[in-house]
Amino acid sequence: MDGRTPEITKLFSDACSGDRSALARLLSLIERGGNDARTVSRLVYPKTGSGYIVGITGAPGAGKSTLTSALIAHIRSLDQPVSVLAIDPSSPFTGGAILGDRVRMQNHATDSGVFIRSMATRGHLGGLSLATSEAVRLLDAVGSPCTLVETVGVGQVEVEIARNADTIVVVVNPGWGDSVQANKAGLLEIADIFVINKADRPGVDQTRRDLEQMLELSDFTSEAWRPTILTTVGTTGEGADKLWNAIGEHRAHTQKDGSLAKRRDQRLRNELRSIIERRLEHRAREICTGERWDAIQNEMLAHTRDPWSSADEMLHGVF
Amino acid sequence: MDGRTPEITKLFSDACSGDRSALARLLSLIERGGNDARTVSRLVYPKTGSGYIVGITGAPGAGKSTLTSALIAHIRSLDQPVSVLAIDPSSPFTGGAILGDRVRMQNHATDSGVFIRSMATRGHLGGLSLATSEAVRLLDAVGSPCTLVETVGVGQVEVEIARNADTIVVVVNPGWGDSVQANKAGLLEIADIFVINKADRPGVDQTRRDLEQMLELSDFTSEAWRPTILTTVGTTGEGADKLWNAIGEHRAHTQKDGSLAKRRDQRLRNELRSIIERRLEHRAREICTGERWDAIQNEMLAHTRDPWSSADEMLHGVF
Repeated sequence: MDGRTPEITKLFSDACSGDRSALARLLSLIERGGNDARTVSRLVYPKTGSGYIVGITGAPGAGKSTLTSALIAHIRSLDQPVSVLAIDPSSPFTGGAILGDRVRMQNHATDSGVFIRSMATRGHLGGLSLATSEAVRLLDAVGSPCTLVETVGVGQVEVEIARNADTIVVVVNPGWGDSVQANKAGLLEIADIFVINKADRPGVDQTRRDLEQMLELSDFTSEAWRPTILTTVGTTGEGADKLWNAIGEHRAHTQKDGSLAKRRDQRLRNELRSIIERRLEHRAREICTGERWDAIQNEMLAHTRDPWSSADEMLHGVF
Repeated sequence: MDGRTPEITKLFSDACSGDRSALARLLSLIERGGNDARTVSRLVYPKTGSGYIVGITGAPGAGKSTLTSALIAHIRSLDQPVSVLAIDPSSPFTGGAILGDRVRMQNHATDSGVFIRSMATRGHLGGLSLATSEAVRLLDAVGSPCTLVETVGVGQVEVEIARNADTIVVVVNPGWGDSVQANKAGLLEIADIFVINKADRPGVDQTRRDLEQMLELSDFTSEAWRPTILTTVGTTGEGADKLWNAIGEHRAHTQKDGSLAKRRDQRLRNELRSIIERRLEHRAREICTGERWDAIQNEMLAHTRDPWSSADEMLHGVF
């Protein structure tokens, strides 16, 4: 509790009543981190649990943004509201996020049933994953029934962010489906739904066979969800309805067999662990100052003490 | 000091005498981390400081491996030895590293003046950057005068690894040179040398102009190194000689004005900080067990305590 709490409480209450600029301001607080973000978290957390999260990931150029846009159009045609978080962990700058906003906002900017927001790395990579979870919870708490989380790129951080979804959609292209690539990115393991996007290009059947072959090598129990494979053409919107139905089927399946609840619990456990790591990193930054720090560093720079021994010396007595 | 120290000391002594299989085993110990890696670090560290490190980075598909191979061929034509570390942080699996080895080793595998090794992520991302630094120091200590560190991809981790070099080469392609892309990856800021690779394709002049324009926006002092821009064709080896000369010029410049020494000191300071962070993370993993951990997690899962407050509660009394 600090001086800003009443102001943030008011913002949250406004956001719950549908005030989008209040919502945008709260998201900025989350993105910025620090005490205000913690205050948002405390207010938001008890009100969460009803929103559904769809992660959309895949190699750069696979057409994720276009597909997401087509999916939004389909969801809106059913008169359902939808929120989108576009996450760009590869960008240490904010330029990417602004660009992403511009491109993606175009079609849906004036639709009050759609809320779109980009988030980019501010400093610590792990921080982006945590901030994404907070942002998703905020959207949940203010009443968004479904949030699409689109990640750019397929590094480990992107996979980590995509993993924090209830349904994970992995977008590939015809001809892209060689098993080395998919394995390399770690996508095969996390996909609930494979989308072969740009399916108007040649090679769809081969890619489908590749994916099916890969799935056959995996060891699914008879009750477990077996990843769906479907085709879309993001630019025309073809297949967006099938994708939305597949998401619904996966949701129903995991609600019924209890795996959704398990996945959500595991996610929270992982998040708590990440927060504890961050807290300790913060402590490390506090430790790494002062005369003792300078003295140990100088020994290391003089090559009389190696970095690992220097770290041990520095941490001696801290815990 | 533990039971394995005499064995590792022997391996290090053998590696210093030119035993490549001993060197490969030491690199595996570094990659694996833990106590053995620390033992290697302690042995190696006092003997380092004479080797030179060249980082080679750029977007996927820019032709870094081919260019690196051409550079190796040129360095060998001058009868100088060279080591290469190919780092793949985007791969959570070892498949990528093995593949990388295969492709790259082909041309130089039988040349005793070339040592090539791939490293992939084993678990923690920060760990790969630290392991790369250790591996580079080991190569330095066993007498390699120059190590090329090639990173795959341009995420934040890749930039972090590339940054740990004495000369940073950023590889772009004709037509790729739009400022948004380069800025997005954070490459503009870290490049000492820009290479426009695949310069047999159209668009070289435009890309050169783009890069020059970007450099003009930067504020270089008159004494500071101003990034070189040069063109290569990796597949034919054209321009590899110019690249090697440019690396030599950058090296001479930074040795003369003292910025090389400053950069190396800063690197060690950053490394020490990273190690301390890792030690604290390790401590976090120790904390996150036991009955108290379970109780706090259960409150969080019941939505009665938010994740950040749970973390505070967990860390209460730890430091």
